[in-house]
Amino acid sequence: MALLLFLFLATTLTISQGSDQETIPHKVHLLRPQSGAGGDHVPGLSCLSWRLGVETNNVVGWITVPEECEDYVGHYMLGHQYRKDSRVVANQAILYAQSLSLARDGKDVWLFDIDETALSNLPYFAQHGFGVEPYNPTLFKKWVMEGQAPALPESLTLYKKLLSLGTKVVFLTGRPEDQRTVTVNNLRKAGYHTWEKLILKGSSYSGKKALVYKSSERKKLEESGYRIIGNMGDQWSDLLGTNVGNRTFKLPDPMYYIS
Amino acid sequence: MALLLFLFLATTLTISQGSDQETIPHKVHLLRPQSGAGGDHVPGLSCLSWRLGVETNNVVGWITVPEECEDYVGHYMLGHQYRKDSRVVANQAILYAQSLSLARDGKDVWLFDIDETALSNLPYFAQHGFGVEPYNPTLFKKWVMEGQAPALPESLTLYKKLLSLGTKVVFLTGRPEDQRTVTVNNLRKAGYHTWEKLILKGSSYSGKKALVYKSSERKKLEESGYRIIGNMGDQWSDLLGTNVGNRTFKLPDPMYYIS
Repeated sequence: MALLLFLFLATTLTISQGSDQETIPHKVHLLRPQSGAGGDHVPGLSCLSWRLGVETNNVVGWITVPEECEDYVGHYMLGHQYRKDSRVVANQAILYAQSLSLARDGKDVWLFDIDETALSNLPYFAQHGFGVEPYNPTLFKKWVMEGQAPALPESLTLYKKLLSLGTKVVFLTGRPEDQRTVTVNNLRKAGYHTWEKLILKGSSYSGKKALVYKSSERKKLEESGYRIIGNMGDQWSDLLGTNVGNRTFKLPDPMYYIS
Repeated sequence: MALLLFLFLATTLTISQGSDQETIPHKVHLLRPQSGAGGDHVPGLSCLSWRLGVETNNVVGWITVPEECEDYVGHYMLGHQYRKDSRVVANQAILYAQSLSLARDGKDVWLFDIDETALSNLPYFAQHGFGVEPYNPTLFKKWVMEGQAPALPESLTLYKKLLSLGTKVVFLTGRPEDQRTVTVNNLRKAGYHTWEKLILKGSSYSGKKALVYKSSERKKLEESGYRIIGNMGDQWSDLLGTNVGNRTFKLPDPMYYIS
């Protein structure tokens, strides 16, 4: 873990150097752990099995990453496997998008969630135990308000491909409405320069679960004539419920669970 | 691969010795591959990422396992990781079932798929490239008609726990109606001694997709007063569609995909 922290500090410095520039380097994991993640032996609980359980929505409603899996999740997120896993998802999405015959009437939209989908908060979570620490809304908000989250490169690649295919993009995020400005600026800095809509969680959804809020907003989209041809998120609450779209794509996220 | 085949033959002999007995040993993987699966480095395509993509329903509609992943999938299925992954799913299901306050009016049912859920066809697939060979309906039917498929031990553990909690079990399988007798006998031999219903695919569903057939049969169950409190399968077509139940559980299966 010491090595990980050391490397992380080095990364933070690297990222900070770019913070005054217009764009954020597309690097969510400059770190290189000593050993490969994705199959490390963990005595007792199999963290690999736990992660698969999370990704398949078998392990639900958990509050924090199991303590014994901190190193495992850290290595996974900072190593090659997270990016490889994300690449397979994005590649499947690209193949699917290319296979469609779109009407090109401006009504085909692709939904992206923001956190751990369009943008990566890995620089934050690397400083907070990769999900082992209980969620701290104050510190996380502070990080969000810096507006320095890099793109998840695989999502940005998909985004650019979708635009080239004539698809419009809608961002649908659980971030609250009062983070609109910083979110707009962060998306632009990270390389997302255009979108049809950016939907943030309005106060009327206060206390409502993400699944309810996102289903309701997707329904509104469809009722106003949009066709949701694809829907990508890191949480199952992005992808389940109603009006989920023609096909959904689940990006990995073993760091937190949102109902 | 040669070692795998040699070990497999040894297993086949072991399993055969028990074939005249009333029960089938609960062993789906006597084999011990040389190296652990779940994280082996595969040049080019990451088979681990491909498998995660399959399990999360990002990689859909595939016909065969990618050729370069035969060894990977074989090691995974015959090694510890498949069983560990299955155990996490079954344990989550047990925790969930224990958390429920059941009416005990005989209307609470738990759905199990059969192939790669209640029963394991691993002895067959180990002889047929673990899904690399295209599906051969003649040979697979021959294997099914032998009625010698062992239980997936984790599913059998869950089954017994559910019965002890007062839950009734319904098997809902894509096997055709004319395999009822062999399926009844195989389930009993493997350790499943009682159930509320065993639903096989009737001729009226001929040509219909599994998702349509299973949704329709689940709807009938609910319309006749049953409450589907849990639903476990190895295919997303067991778990998506309508009337899916209060909670679903996805067992691993990187060997084939059923729409």
